[in-house]
Amino acid sequence: MSRHAPVNDDNVKDVAVSTDIVAYMTSLGRSARAAGAVMRGQDTAAKNAALMAMARHLEAARSELIDANAQDLARGRETGLDAALLDRLALNDTRIDGMIEGLHQVAALPDPVGEIDGLHSRPSGIQVGQMRVPLGVIGIIYESRPNVTIEAASLCLKAGNACILRGGSEARESNAAIAACIDAGLREAGLPAAAVQVVATTDRAAVGQLISMPEYVDVIIPRGGKSLIERISREARVPVIKHLDGVCHVYVDASADLDKAVAIAVNAKTHRYGTCNTMETLLVDAPVAAELLPRLASFYAEHGVELRGCERTQAILKGIAAANEEDWATEYLAPVLAIRVVDGIEEAMAHIDRYGSHHTDAIVTENYGLARRFLAEVDSSSVMVNASTRFADGFEYGLGAEIGISTDKLHARGPVGLEGLTTRKYVVLGDGHVRV
Amino acid sequence: MSRHAPVNDDNVKDVAVSTDIVAYMTSLGRSARAAGAVMRGQDTAAKNAALMAMARHLEAARSELIDANAQDLARGRETGLDAALLDRLALNDTRIDGMIEGLHQVAALPDPVGEIDGLHSRPSGIQVGQMRVPLGVIGIIYESRPNVTIEAASLCLKAGNACILRGGSEARESNAAIAACIDAGLREAGLPAAAVQVVATTDRAAVGQLISMPEYVDVIIPRGGKSLIERISREARVPVIKHLDGVCHVYVDASADLDKAVAIAVNAKTHRYGTCNTMETLLVDAPVAAELLPRLASFYAEHGVELRGCERTQAILKGIAAANEEDWATEYLAPVLAIRVVDGIEEAMAHIDRYGSHHTDAIVTENYGLARRFLAEVDSSSVMVNASTRFADGFEYGLGAEIGISTDKLHARGPVGLEGLTTRKYVVLGDGHVRV
Repeated sequence: MSRHAPVNDDNVKDVAVSTDIVAYMTSLGRSARAAGAVMRGQDTAAKNAALMAMARHLEAARSELIDANAQDLARGRETGLDAALLDRLALNDTRIDGMIEGLHQVAALPDPVGEIDGLHSRPSGIQVGQMRVPLGVIGIIYESRPNVTIEAASLCLKAGNACILRGGSEARESNAAIAACIDAGLREAGLPAAAVQVVATTDRAAVGQLISMPEYVDVIIPRGGKSLIERISREARVPVIKHLDGVCHVYVDASADLDKAVAIAVNAKTHRYGTCNTMETLLVDAPVAAELLPRLASFYAEHGVELRGCERTQAILKGIAAANEEDWATEYLAPVLAIRVVDGIEEAMAHIDRYGSHHTDAIVTENYGLARRFLAEVDSSSVMVNASTRFADGFEYGLGAEIGISTDKLHARGPVGLEGLTTRKYVVLGDGHVRV
Repeated sequence: MSRHAPVNDDNVKDVAVSTDIVAYMTSLGRSARAAGAVMRGQDTAAKNAALMAMARHLEAARSELIDANAQDLARGRETGLDAALLDRLALNDTRIDGMIEGLHQVAALPDPVGEIDGLHSRPSGIQVGQMRVPLGVIGIIYESRPNVTIEAASLCLKAGNACILRGGSEARESNAAIAACIDAGLREAGLPAAAVQVVATTDRAAVGQLISMPEYVDVIIPRGGKSLIERISREARVPVIKHLDGVCHVYVDASADLDKAVAIAVNAKTHRYGTCNTMETLLVDAPVAAELLPRLASFYAEHGVELRGCERTQAILKGIAAANEEDWATEYLAPVLAIRVVDGIEEAMAHIDRYGSHHTDAIVTENYGLARRFLAEVDSSSVMVNASTRFADGFEYGLGAEIGISTDKLHARGPVGLEGLTTRKYVVLGDGHVRV
């Protein structure tokens, strides 16, 4: 990262560091704002050229990347990072292949910038439409996976934005090596180097400053654990596109085809346990509970899924534990499932509204009217009929790439791809028209 | 407002009031959240029936409305409100006609809720699209004009939201009388009375509480002066759709048709002085300055517009005052215009980027390439070619109605109509599909 002065984040007194950090982050912000103005004028070819050049520089720097990563891994082992974290941190040839492939994929995506929707003529004689344009400057805060550096940079760049990336301190050497490849790619393509800036200090105060500069940063996207995201949302003075819990439900209605219900309820729970779109609570309409629950229970037993039920569930599935109030609101991210027997769609929707996280909820039904109601009335970022909640994903939805899943309602809701990194402005075309 | 306990906002000690206010606003929030869930399920006919019923109740309550307003006006005169404020506060038959007509117009607008965009089939077999849905609960904070109560209520309702309206204390009797008509209309149509709640206390702490309840309120829209909006943006814990300055520019390029340039520059400045889409700075490309500026100056003189110019402008228009740094960044809202001679589009766009407020900016040009660049690169909510900035308006754009103009980039940018009061969620249609 030759383009900004290194910040010494050890061996300096707190006050001095804070002053340095404010000055350093402000300089990143100012450079990003200027780079964003240049990026707005770049065409698709220029952006794609930069992405392809970055891919070539990654390819050429494989050994440097692996060496840098080895330093991070060594320090991680010394400081006692657990095995899962070390795995996320590790780079190898396969993961470098994945980053290169990701850059090719983003280059191949249609460019959303410049699209004009709804251009139409008004009685006054002007034509009015909405043009899709970059947001400007995006700050992304993430944790240990160094490949996020490439994912985030490539999506922000393709959407015409400048970005400031703040990765986890565990990955600092890896991120610096990746940043050098990004930098070289930008320069080779003639784009401003400050279009992608990787924060070169691991001082935590950098995050506090990044989220407090609305004059330089248009939106913050935190990627990480719930506590990180909650803290950033609480403290940010910049809008945040955030992803909190995924307490997802499947409701099996009395009219459901029970074969479909079994397939969906098993897949939604057992396909992967640690993902936000995994089902955490199953709601079953009373008339089919006695038939459905024992069938499901044998599948769940095969997968080693622990079941916790309401009293009516316990009456059918003898011996399972009771689910309490806390269970209904818990994102287990584990082979545990809460089950509740309900009386019809009203009670199911009321449960989802009360305990859910408005992430992804599905109904299994053959009843047209109930499907229609569930789609209209359940207030979640993804609402499904007769499909597994596991489909809630940018790639499954055809976005081509995903920077995250938004559980917010404003701006972007659900999986966020390139479009979520843009906004729309009005364009007016006239020929000397004035207002009368 | 019979549906919640009255709050005594005089004669009570501060601490007691604050406790009351928190409890009171929390109860409004809880009721709004519940009403929002019911509103999500309402079809267009039910919402329109409520709007038409409200119109009938306003018609039937003309004398009560005028009596209530007379109390506000009398108190306003006693407390020394200025003439402009008293005028905004006043209700008369024409203004009541306007409110009734407004309700009819909103009822006639297409309902955006339930529209599904881009439903398409994925290789997995599912169909994915995006459905437009209500935001949920909207808080609107506004000043003295009582007709805003009807405008805000009708737009929120038509978009399927519940709303909490907090009008200016000067209009409290008028707003209570209007609220009674809204209430009667909702009840007559069988919609929840809490779908529209008018805050029945003038205690300023109510605003502080309204903007601090993300669990009950999804977005805040402040309508009023800049200081109100800045304070709310700074303190809100809920997303804010805000409208700050309109420092709007017209740039006349060397290739412009000067007749069009004169028409647009005169209209953009003199059509109305106090509106946010009025031009505040004129930028003129050097090669046409000597011809254009004297022509414009005579029109501006006719309208009594004071001119302030850069040195090059002063060299052409002898005797006008100098424009300083502050002028370039000022929203005059008055018959004053700053003028700068620039060398080409780059300098014009750099000026707009530095001093403008990203509201509305126009270029006058016959050059295709420059028009295209200006549209793509100027980062404002409305960007125009050969048209007066005064067109930046929800009605002129065909939105049918407008809750305000957003100078934010996220979610809604530019004039905000019904669509800005909604969001989109993903819908997935399957037939037992699971993820492999």
